Amino acid sequence: MADFERRIPEGDNRERLVCATCGFIAYENPRIVVGSVVVHEGAVLMCRRAIDPRRGYWTLPAGYLEQGETPEEGAAREAMEEAQAGIAIDGILAVFSIARIGQVQVIFRARFADPARPHFAAGPESQEVGLYAWHEIPWDDIAFPSVRWALDAWRQSGTGPLGAPFGNPAQDRRGVLRMPQAPSGAL
Amino acid sequence: MADFERRIPEGDNRERLVCATCGFIAYENPRIVVGSVVVHEGAVLMCRRAIDPRRGYWTLPAGYLEQGETPEEGAAREAMEEAQAGIAIDGILAVFSIARIGQVQVIFRARFADPARPHFAAGPESQEVGLYAWHEIPWDDIAFPSVRWALDAWRQSGTGPLGAPFGNPAQDRRGVLRMPQAPSGAL
Repeated sequence: MADFERRIPEGDNRERLVCATCGFIAYENPRIVVGSVVVHEGAVLMCRRAIDPRRGYWTLPAGYLEQGETPEEGAAREAMEEAQAGIAIDGILAVFSIARIGQVQVIFRARFADPARPHFAAGPESQEVGLYAWHEIPWDDIAFPSVRWALDAWRQSGTGPLGAPFGNPAQDRRGVLRMPQAPSGAL
Repeated sequence: MADFERRIPEGDNRERLVCATCGFIAYENPRIVVGSVVVHEGAVLMCRRAIDPRRGYWTLPAGYLEQGETPEEGAAREAMEEAQAGIAIDGILAVFSIARIGQVQVIFRARFADPARPHFAAGPESQEVGLYAWHEIPWDDIAFPSVRWALDAWRQSGTGPLGAPFGNPAQDRRGVLRMPQAPSGAL
């Protein structure tokens, strides 16, 4: 059985998970989540989660970047897996830090690959998928604070060219708060 | 001894490194490199590597983001570790994908924390550290292609507010080429 202990490997300066028997070092680096705000005629593509955590709550198509993918490719794969949507990426809308759980999120703004025939449907990880105008967004049932941050960034960015990416909101600069925030829709 | 095999864990859809004995899954996700172009009076802070790979070649202060850090914090830590420089971050200059080796690089534009008294010195991982104007940059001895990409992005971004982040250059959109490219300084 793998027999991991926490110690500082030679030449390093912080504790790592090291197998006491074979010396295998399981580096635990932050992970990259890639996702997208897919916009069509002023509405945004959202997915109701069919899996834990936050099953039944609403999110954007997003997930962990996999080896060998660019962030853009990862975001497109997630849109296909979770919403069966082919997308075309505009650019980076936001970069969020969720230091509490070791995540960096790169959120793109995107369109449907064929805007004349937008296609979407629930993938295996979604109960339901839909396009929502700002005031139709199910604000009371958002899965994660960063979903709201991304939606706020989309609203502030407008429809023109993308500028500097949005970052964490002022009330949680490092991404360490656990508490859900007041719904943006209620502001 | 940890006895890893490649197989698809239950509920997953791709091969992972799984310990055959205890079931520990060593997820290999892409890693985040954070770094900075630290600018002072038109010159950029560069470090000559004292460690492999590319020992003796020049790079920017950069390294792997660690658990519990925001990207900005990681970039500041690397500037301190590699160049003993306290920095203030302006914003995101570039986001690069190096899909070949599973990296996403977030490169910031930064200044010295106290521009009136810029301090820098070689940290343990650097042989030498210096400020270089564009035409003084040691173009023939750059450690990695992405260092050149970041320097090119800095030059193109000018000194005003940062806009949309730069990405990979057209000749290597996914970050898969092994060959060094023609030096920018020679263009």
